[in-house]
Amino acid sequence: MSSDTETAVFEEATEEPFELSRKLVVGILYAVDAKDRETLTKLMEPLHAADIADLLEQINAYDRRRLIQLYDRGFDGEILSELDESIREEVIALLNPHVLAEAVRELESDDVVDLLEDLEEPQQEAILDVLEDSDRVAVEQSLAYPENSAGRLMQREVVMAPDHWTVGQVIDHMRASEDLPEQFYHVVVVNPRLHPVGNVTLGRIMATRRDVPLMDLTEETFEIFRADMDEEDVAYAFNQYHLISAPVVDDEGRIVGVITIDDAMIVLDEEHEEDILRLAGVGEESSLSDKVINTTRRRFPWLAVNLVTAVLASLVIAQFEETIAGFVALAVLMPIVASMGGNAGTQSLTVAVRALATRDLTGSNVWRVIRREILVGLVNGVIFAAVMAVVGMVWFGSPALGGVIAVAMVINLVVAGLAGTVIPIILDRLNVDPALASGAFVTTVTDVVGFFAFLGLAAVVLL
Amino acid sequence: MSSDTETAVFEEATEEPFELSRKLVVGILYAVDAKDRETLTKLMEPLHAADIADLLEQINAYDRRRLIQLYDRGFDGEILSELDESIREEVIALLNPHVLAEAVRELESDDVVDLLEDLEEPQQEAILDVLEDSDRVAVEQSLAYPENSAGRLMQREVVMAPDHWTVGQVIDHMRASEDLPEQFYHVVVVNPRLHPVGNVTLGRIMATRRDVPLMDLTEETFEIFRADMDEEDVAYAFNQYHLISAPVVDDEGRIVGVITIDDAMIVLDEEHEEDILRLAGVGEESSLSDKVINTTRRRFPWLAVNLVTAVLASLVIAQFEETIAGFVALAVLMPIVASMGGNAGTQSLTVAVRALATRDLTGSNVWRVIRREILVGLVNGVIFAAVMAVVGMVWFGSPALGGVIAVAMVINLVVAGLAGTVIPIILDRLNVDPALASGAFVTTVTDVVGFFAFLGLAAVVLL
Repeated sequence: MSSDTETAVFEEATEEPFELSRKLVVGILYAVDAKDRETLTKLMEPLHAADIADLLEQINAYDRRRLIQLYDRGFDGEILSELDESIREEVIALLNPHVLAEAVRELESDDVVDLLEDLEEPQQEAILDVLEDSDRVAVEQSLAYPENSAGRLMQREVVMAPDHWTVGQVIDHMRASEDLPEQFYHVVVVNPRLHPVGNVTLGRIMATRRDVPLMDLTEETFEIFRADMDEEDVAYAFNQYHLISAPVVDDEGRIVGVITIDDAMIVLDEEHEEDILRLAGVGEESSLSDKVINTTRRRFPWLAVNLVTAVLASLVIAQFEETIAGFVALAVLMPIVASMGGNAGTQSLTVAVRALATRDLTGSNVWRVIRREILVGLVNGVIFAAVMAVVGMVWFGSPALGGVIAVAMVINLVVAGLAGTVIPIILDRLNVDPALASGAFVTTVTDVVGFFAFLGLAAVVLL
Repeated sequence: MSSDTETAVFEEATEEPFELSRKLVVGILYAVDAKDRETLTKLMEPLHAADIADLLEQINAYDRRRLIQLYDRGFDGEILSELDESIREEVIALLNPHVLAEAVRELESDDVVDLLEDLEEPQQEAILDVLEDSDRVAVEQSLAYPENSAGRLMQREVVMAPDHWTVGQVIDHMRASEDLPEQFYHVVVVNPRLHPVGNVTLGRIMATRRDVPLMDLTEETFEIFRADMDEEDVAYAFNQYHLISAPVVDDEGRIVGVITIDDAMIVLDEEHEEDILRLAGVGEESSLSDKVINTTRRRFPWLAVNLVTAVLASLVIAQFEETIAGFVALAVLMPIVASMGGNAGTQSLTVAVRALATRDLTGSNVWRVIRREILVGLVNGVIFAAVMAVVGMVWFGSPALGGVIAVAMVINLVVAGLAGTVIPIILDRLNVDPALASGAFVTTVTDVVGFFAFLGLAAVVLL
């Protein structure tokens, strides 16, 4: 364990807004130690389900078990929804069956779907069994849609109105209705075949006279999603067109549900997280509460790919063993060329991967973007070539060596710009996620080209 | 230019949903060439403002100018809001003043603020001048709040109700009101001092009898933001607590506006983008429509930092020139150790940076996380050490060399896990964005340690 002074740097600095305070966590764990249910309840009462989930993620498995055993009467179902998948099964297994049943019954059907999709078969069954019949049917219908589809994301409760209604009629209908959803933002206007034809905001309805036809109030921006559409595309459209809610339809174009912006925001957040982790070679769904063995296993393949890349680069170097033996300064300087290329390549590829994800890099501008990246590589290459030429000359007193490293630098930065752009584009066209695989390819190219250009030129010029 | 077959790979592959089709862009540019305003209007009519903005970003400056000159009567103000900052000023300068005035007057006040904040002084003035007095005051008041604050993000139109009202009273009030906002989701309940005390969804109001007090319907989750709070914290809270809208208050706690989930989603999106670009050393606000010189300038400092890092690593290598001269295989293998360390370090640091951003890495679990990363590094280190020991022995026939690279590998992967976690945490505590600066530090550590461990051990064991 660490001494108090060491601890201070990490633990006692100012906390960010909405961060779980260290003091509260200590207090809760103290109550757990003392088996003091009353204090525990008092401390946890004001916490939002999302914060309780964070708390459970931040403490260790032993404390987690003791806390849940002490707290388990009245466990909010939403906590389960908010929990990281890595410990969700563990927590569900800890809850006593009555408490679990109670918790799940509170949830909306789309949250139950979200909860179920990542569980193992037996836990899925156990949860489906405690649902009321109508809820179970709804959940099972949702699960019939493909994973990560609009159908899984949507909620089935929709407030609809026929396209010939007026504001007054829809108000009366809503006021008389027994089971309006708690949160809804639009009334979806449908034609007699139940095809959605427009969205009217509740605010607009409230602001308008009773005799105005609903169709006069529909929003200009209106998107309809098919239930089998990828949730990634749905989230993109919400973000691009600033949608608040949008109807989902079946193969025949009939309305089957509605997706709201809060669902889209969660998907967008997950997509971003995935992109960041993939770009860094961490794989998906990494979280701090994962077990060491799982994390190790997930990072392993990326490091293995990198090892292959690195060995390839070494094979290039091996071709020049004699050159290096004759001029050891080459061994000292060669990593600089490769490293600069790798960095420049990462810059280009990140911009390209993002532009592909936001659909800003398309057939219309692809050649211009490639040309631009080559130019950027050329300009930066020339500047750093000049710097390295001077370094090479001053450090090793050899103008020829300075010249070699300068030329190699220009070549590698231009290649980095080219490879960093073209590789993600090709992967994308081949339907491979460019965030996933570009890094390894680009680094291979910049390493191989970097070492080859530098050592090859040196072999010709210096020996 | 490229031949048709080359072009095909990039341009004719299936397009993604919601992507601007290449065919449409070609058609539009053709109409521009032919100065055919009618066809141009017909092609652009169905496009959403966000798509028109994308179109303007994807074509070159020359086409952009001609398109705007041909199209400029009736230019939707929203297009300006959606445009990348890098070409927004250019487009504004191209519009004739009447068209610009018309475009800006259509926008909501918070969109005007968003538009203005990034413009130069004279363009700001020009736009403020065309606004109506009341709008201009609203915009100027918003601009008085600090950049990236809740005050800038909020809209000023709020639907409020006193805390003693019933459902019937608030419905009558809304029905009688002349200027309800087009989009609103909650009625904010306020006390007599205008402090917000609760949110009631419109849906809930529609579903409830007239005589029920509003305060019986307030939502359980209710967050209030101060106007000077950082928008990043606001977006975090929206995401964490699944908020739909939330009131903003001044220093005295009085309500001054409301932030809705669509604003928060935009901020969240920007924050993510920034994190990705910073992690890759690209700096912020990079876009495909930037000029080459701007992109070059923005990427330059990151490459310069990397050069310093690389030179530092070279200085370490230089200490072992004699060792390398005596055993050139070392030069061949040494980049492998450094590269594996760099990759493992990047994995750890990305997870740490994300966990800090999502406030999952806190004082409560920091030691456990550090221990975990070291363990992951150790396990992967041992596996790859075994692989490299074999490679070293087979390739160079030297068990001693195999042993040296194996030990160096373990050391460097453990150090990578440690540095990759501790460095972002320390930067975060020092209030430096860990996404911005961690990469350079971590790579320096893994390069220096990698070369030093490998060559140092080799000097002792092999010579």
